[in-house]
Amino acid sequence: MITLHTWTTPNGRKPVILLEELGEPYEIVPVDLRRNQQFEPGFLKLSPNNKIPAMVDDGAEGGTVTLFESGAILTYLADKFGKCLAPSGPARWQAMQWLHWQIGGLGPMLGQLGFFAQQDDAFALDRFVKEADRLLTVLDTQLGSSQYVAGDDYTIADIACYTWVQAATERLQAPLGDILASKADLQRWIALVGARPAVQKGMAWQV
Amino acid sequence: MITLHTWTTPNGRKPVILLEELGEPYEIVPVDLRRNQQFEPGFLKLSPNNKIPAMVDDGAEGGTVTLFESGAILTYLADKFGKCLAPSGPARWQAMQWLHWQIGGLGPMLGQLGFFAQQDDAFALDRFVKEADRLLTVLDTQLGSSQYVAGDDYTIADIACYTWVQAATERLQAPLGDILASKADLQRWIALVGARPAVQKGMAWQV
Ligand SMILES: N[C@@H](CCC(=O)N[C@@H](CS)C(=O)NCC(=O)O)C(=O)O
Ligand SMILES: N[C@@H](CCC(=O)N[C@@H](CS)C(=O)NCC(=O)O)C(=O)O
Repeated sequence: MITLHTWTTPNGRKPVILLEELGEPYEIVPVDLRRNQQFEPGFLKLSPNNKIPAMVDDGAEGGTVTLFESGAILTYLADKFGKCLAPSGPARWQAMQWLHWQIGGLGPMLGQLGFFAQQDDAFALDRFVKEADRLLTVLDTQLGSSQYVAGDDYTIADIACYTWVQAATERLQAPLGDILASKADLQRWIALVGARPAVQKGMAWQV
Repeated sequence: MITLHTWTTPNGRKPVILLEELGEPYEIVPVDLRRNQQFEPGFLKLSPNNKIPAMVDDGAEGGTVTLFESGAILTYLADKFGKCLAPSGPARWQAMQWLHWQIGGLGPMLGQLGFFAQQDDAFALDRFVKEADRLLTVLDTQLGSSQYVAGDDYTIADIACYTWVQAATERLQAPLGDILASKADLQRWIALVGARPAVQKGMAWQV
């Protein structure tokens, strides 16, 4: 059985969306960030970086697999069940590069923007608004030449980017202004991905 | 032939170190960040996010592979040549999670620390010093229970973390104070990894 230790945040929803897409059984153990459960010793054993999501697969080949980091979890599950990530060839690496781009760029920078939007630090806020705009422009441009983030097929790179773009739409309206609304290809893709039943289930998941 | 489009920075040195470790032939096309060559149209075609490193492998199975994002490039090369990353099983996923941790955490946060160390913004600087300390403590703790970042074997997770820890040692001394020096297991690992000939070659590479 696959167990997700997760919460209702952009990174936390990613593996829920993927498992719904895969149609595979899983259990969720909620890690309530409002109550600092990410610092509890049992959770830190799974995720020493005190962040959700984490995953345990006790039915893995070669022994139980315990994982933290959403990008590693998405890759693991996509490879295990053979969906949302090509097993080899250029298409696999297109998806991997955009997944890494979300993990190393879009996620952390929107995260910092969310933080500084609630502080009194105009200099840092301006930095992260500009960086968010730059990154969202990169994504919009990419979506201007391909249906999905990594090409013609829906992949884990779409799942990874979607939860963050969706969170930005809902919660970073104030600092971002019309940056999101002005990006037509991004908007097309938000509607396309958001129409998938598995995405809707993952985004609606509540504890 | 494998061509790296890269520069002498922490992310830029990672694939150089790996290719030296693999002993495979490669060419380097320098992308001079001081002269803003990352914004030139030819490079943006390879790396629309205007960041190094990027890689082209015109000898890939299934067609030329063009990649940006250092984590994707390291994974691609390790898989292609069957070294520094287990092909399957728990060891593979241990390495993948720590690779993602570097890409999504250690790298971006040390990057922000480097930026704010040169600005007049005490609030943001304090935030990123604390976050760097937290992340380096997570790494030090991990290295207290295993030889390398992801277990008993040297992997791409070591390469990814090493270039950043080394850059912090050299260039973030002022904001970090004795945070690095006080971490004994981290220091043991820095010496261990730094003694590898391929690491020395990659770190010494200059244009
Ligand atoms: N790079 C990580 C980031 C995970 C992350 O930032 N998780 C947040 C929630 S979205 C968290 O657990 N925060 C709690 C904390 O930092 O204490 C991933 O993609 O899994
Ligand atoms: N997540 C990316 C980060 C790459 C990155 O930040 N590269 C820096 C140099 S270390 C760069 O090219 N900066 C130039 C710019 O942003 O314009 C990776 O791991 O490849």
